[in-house]
Amino acid sequence: MKQLKGACVIGQSGGPTSVINASALGAIEAALDNDVITRVYGAAHGIKGVLDDQLYIMDEEDRAELAHLRHTPSSILGSCRYKLKDFEEDETDYKRILEIFRKYDVRYFFYNGGNDSMDTCNKISKYMLKNGYECRVMGIPKTIDNDLAGTDHCPGYGSAAKYIATSCMELYLDARVYNTGMITILEIMGRHAGWLTAAAALAGEYAPDLIYLPEVAFDMDKFIQDVKTIYEKNGKVIVAVSEGIHDKDGKLVAEYGGTAQSRDSFGHAQLGGLAATLAAIVKEKTAAKVRGIEFSLLQRCASHVASLTDIEESYSAGRAAVENAVKGVTDKMVGFKCTRDKSYNCEIELLPLETVANTEKKVPLEWINETKDGLLQPYIDYALPLIAGETGQEKENGLPRFAKLKKVLR
Amino acid sequence: MKQLKGACVIGQSGGPTSVINASALGAIEAALDNDVITRVYGAAHGIKGVLDDQLYIMDEEDRAELAHLRHTPSSILGSCRYKLKDFEEDETDYKRILEIFRKYDVRYFFYNGGNDSMDTCNKISKYMLKNGYECRVMGIPKTIDNDLAGTDHCPGYGSAAKYIATSCMELYLDARVYNTGMITILEIMGRHAGWLTAAAALAGEYAPDLIYLPEVAFDMDKFIQDVKTIYEKNGKVIVAVSEGIHDKDGKLVAEYGGTAQSRDSFGHAQLGGLAATLAAIVKEKTAAKVRGIEFSLLQRCASHVASLTDIEESYSAGRAAVENAVKGVTDKMVGFKCTRDKSYNCEIELLPLETVANTEKKVPLEWINETKDGLLQPYIDYALPLIAGETGQEKENGLPRFAKLKKVLR
Repeated sequence: MKQLKGACVIGQSGGPTSVINASALGAIEAALDNDVITRVYGAAHGIKGVLDDQLYIMDEEDRAELAHLRHTPSSILGSCRYKLKDFEEDETDYKRILEIFRKYDVRYFFYNGGNDSMDTCNKISKYMLKNGYECRVMGIPKTIDNDLAGTDHCPGYGSAAKYIATSCMELYLDARVYNTGMITILEIMGRHAGWLTAAAALAGEYAPDLIYLPEVAFDMDKFIQDVKTIYEKNGKVIVAVSEGIHDKDGKLVAEYGGTAQSRDSFGHAQLGGLAATLAAIVKEKTAAKVRGIEFSLLQRCASHVASLTDIEESYSAGRAAVENAVKGVTDKMVGFKCTRDKSYNCEIELLPLETVANTEKKVPLEWINETKDGLLQPYIDYALPLIAGETGQEKENGLPRFAKLKKVLR
Repeated sequence: MKQLKGACVIGQSGGPTSVINASALGAIEAALDNDVITRVYGAAHGIKGVLDDQLYIMDEEDRAELAHLRHTPSSILGSCRYKLKDFEEDETDYKRILEIFRKYDVRYFFYNGGNDSMDTCNKISKYMLKNGYECRVMGIPKTIDNDLAGTDHCPGYGSAAKYIATSCMELYLDARVYNTGMITILEIMGRHAGWLTAAAALAGEYAPDLIYLPEVAFDMDKFIQDVKTIYEKNGKVIVAVSEGIHDKDGKLVAEYGGTAQSRDSFGHAQLGGLAATLAAIVKEKTAAKVRGIEFSLLQRCASHVASLTDIEESYSAGRAAVENAVKGVTDKMVGFKCTRDKSYNCEIELLPLETVANTEKKVPLEWINETKDGLLQPYIDYALPLIAGETGQEKENGLPRFAKLKKVLR
């Protein structure tokens, strides 16, 4: 394999997670440690940083300070939700990317994100190949949604799942404080895939009574009836719903209340307000005290309760991307191949970008119970290893110590 | 001092906290360890458990299992919001309490709660005294609201403050991910006192831009103008508001949106929906992307991020109540007297119940900045020691291990 000397660009894209910076750290450290990579750039706000010639020089950062990225949530370099057009359709962005890559002799491009980011990655890789510019392109997976195809799971999911399960446990006890009736509706992220909402089931004996995923159609009449039955029996009901639940006609339940909706640049509906909508409906039908709780952004940035397994795997994924690229690998996403027979074991597996891009992996229907309002043991067995281990986050004055980078622009 | 042999009743009242069970544990352990106390009862749902003759026998519990109460949020015995009438007005409840106390030879009553609970405590103490029934009554403070008079601070506050400050830090980074404009409104608990909302300031360089407490009148026009100014300069604005903020005429801002309100049995308005109301107003005035986030019940039950200082102090408060009562003290609330000159030091101080009951301690106006939208250093110096230290909560499969009591009824 020919040694390819040159600079690298590392970018972060899509919604942040508690551990996306652990992947960035893995990639940055591996790149800094490598003599073949001449310069390590961080793209400001993902691919937009390349288009706008906004690159931070990672070589200028203090290594000890960089190490704090392991426990710093959100995207330290900044992120974007910028969709590249197909290059057959409009070459403008690609020409600009090639221009910047040539300008700084960028020969390695590492992009850390979800489905849409793998699509960006794939398109850039193909364009460079077509134009004879040698550049190794690697995708590093990241998404709390856990919906990337081909990999056992995605970095970011374990930590979000741990936050959700922990919060469900705490809320279960809180809801039982008074000997008066109470119905609680928890709204959890996840447009099309119910992985995050499924994590509520990890709370075990403290799990919500009813859990609804977008993988199956939501039946409002059955839901109201089930809530009433549990309420009459126990006086307390906790329901977990994915923001993306919809009825058999595909209409989002979040839209039942007539909440104003907007769409992002990928055309995804911006959801929210489902807990309030459902709470109002349930209140009307039961006359019980009902409270809607939205986990909101907290579920994707709560690094204080991150999973150590997730942190370590995220870091490894970043390192593996760089180390493999230097060895000659390109056009791949780093994935995980896991076994859970006796103990949990997770290994790196390289997946072709085109098989990952734009495919959504959903919760298998056979992991959902017969009444479509709970999860079965195979899901628990799948997910429990992913939330194992405590973060060990460094504290100052009782609060997290986050990384403070210089971010020197090139 | 005459030795008073007899049983004790321990009750929990009002809204739960992450550490109210640490106080219960302190009281239960001290009572079990003491030969003078013949039997240790836990009242199911506070004073209602006494009225309904629903007492759990704590002597029947496994000591190792009880120890898990230190890290179990919410009120393990159940709580209530039951207001006793003045006994001059209606003696019914008091006669019943005396009947139960006589029936089980209850000579010690320990009540763990906030202002209203200290009022209950005070009334029972006075009634027993008036009727010549020897019973030592002690209040154990508890409230995330931190609004009890006489004591430096309240058990429960430090942990809620730690959750709020930590979440503010994480959300600060999350809000800066995209290079597009974003205004975030955080709604924090606190009807009349702004202690919890003030905790947002502990996030330091990651603190919200604007922090509004109910101690000062909220001016909507100035608020909108300030948000606009910061938005135009930085593109990002984070605002923390107490649920109880009101305008100069005393009207709650939460009611601006016409949200349906209800009142609890103490006549307190049930607030909520302020974040959504304010978000809608700000969106209309700025046309920016605005997101409202309510910390909701999570801020009072997030034991996974409890303050070790708070846990230890809560435990000590419970122990001190029992140990002092056995020595002959009655009619007092356990309070804290603290110094912060060189290092933080906290000592137990006993306060007369009648000076504590029904008085609300607010954030001193001299700790609020001139523009009434932030906190000054004296608040930071006051609060930082209270959030110090990590919980050390035991985990099983990556999730908290909560106490599981037998709760054998008498």
